[in-house]
Amino acid sequence: MEKVKFTNNGNCFESESESKDKKGSSSLLFLGTGCSSAVPNVLCLIQPSNPPCEVCTQSLSIPPEKNPNYRCNTSLLIDYSNDDGEHKYILIDVGKTFREQVLRWFTRHSIPQVDSIILTHEHADAVLGLDDIRAVQPFSPTNDIEPTQIYLTQFAMDSVAEKFPYLVQKKLKEGQEVRRVAQLDWNIIKNDLEEPFVSSGLQFVPLPVTFSESILPRCYEFTIFPI
Amino acid sequence: MEKVKFTNNGNCFESESESKDKKGSSSLLFLGTGCSSAVPNVLCLIQPSNPPCEVCTQSLSIPPEKNPNYRCNTSLLIDYSNDDGEHKYILIDVGKTFREQVLRWFTRHSIPQVDSIILTHEHADAVLGLDDIRAVQPFSPTNDIEPTQIYLTQFAMDSVAEKFPYLVQKKLKEGQEVRRVAQLDWNIIKNDLEEPFVSSGLQFVPLPVTFSESILPRCYEFTIFPI
Repeated sequence: MEKVKFTNNGNCFESESESKDKKGSSSLLFLGTGCSSAVPNVLCLIQPSNPPCEVCTQSLSIPPEKNPNYRCNTSLLIDYSNDDGEHKYILIDVGKTFREQVLRWFTRHSIPQVDSIILTHEHADAVLGLDDIRAVQPFSPTNDIEPTQIYLTQFAMDSVAEKFPYLVQKKLKEGQEVRRVAQLDWNIIKNDLEEPFVSSGLQFVPLPVTFSESILPRCYEFTIFPI
Repeated sequence: MEKVKFTNNGNCFESESESKDKKGSSSLLFLGTGCSSAVPNVLCLIQPSNPPCEVCTQSLSIPPEKNPNYRCNTSLLIDYSNDDGEHKYILIDVGKTFREQVLRWFTRHSIPQVDSIILTHEHADAVLGLDDIRAVQPFSPTNDIEPTQIYLTQFAMDSVAEKFPYLVQKKLKEGQEVRRVAQLDWNIIKNDLEEPFVSSGLQFVPLPVTFSESILPRCYEFTIFPI
């Protein structure tokens, strides 16, 4: 039986095993639940309407951690405790506000790293924080770390490769000793097949969905199962 | 005669005309003075060394506005008061932390918009906030606003066009009524010629400089003159 509880900070759901052989607890950490521009909308603050927008204006007086209307780009961190009690951290989407989300929530919930990443689509609010993934990877002076597994569609891969060519390039250039960039191992989610894949010990079933003006289903939701 | 004064928040230099016919004051607002990863380095917080990094750890107890070691990506806002007393706001570089810089400093210093933009180079800490420029432009329901003038080299233009194709595309697609993206008018700084250009009433002389491993001078500093 799984128990889901709501913690007092309003941003973390914990799912705790109640079996006799309790091995630990998993949790879902909502790093962001806002729209693509995030909330507050900056325009509401620097060019305020009359009367001013109540929701956005709260950010001028209430600190983000106490303000339920301070909402970064949509993103979820799965803290998965496996049968050995080992925690794996699976990040879904890495948007424009990723660094801010890490500063706020990783520090508060003692999240030490990201073990794997899943991208739902290629828009700025889902991928534009990828440059900062290096900050949640292990440090080595020569950056010869194990690459973090990352899952995305071929469509998203093509877009990300144009935005971040240095995150896709594997080889050192002549005379280059260290590539001080995020180390990522790119995995393509097979298109339209709803074929499951495994990321850090959890099985994900991609469910293609259409997105705004797009005709092709190039955005994904996921159903998640322990394996 | 120009007077430069240092304001109490440690982030704004004001240059005030002392002529009898005082028309207003200009100022330089340092939106960020940090490195490409910005400070704090997230890694120092989520995987702390022993003893922990003193500089980065300050961010856990001192709010950013009181912490001189909380430093976003390097960026400068020129608040230029022209002969008519009209203020023009010229932004140099739009890095990864741009939204955070606007939330913090535009609101504190009552900056209502950005009038023109200059990019020094094409790296993430100088351009990756461009998606958020729409938030510092005027709002119209159909987004038929005057585009903001933006200046950059051809090398940077090629890179930005791959990262943000929707910010370069001008035409509406079939059936599309509104392009709810930043409206920008792209201007190429002529390469290697040190040829001045004018942005929001100020003349800028680009000075090519080399950058880290790059052989070609594809990064620019600027000397600025009133015209």
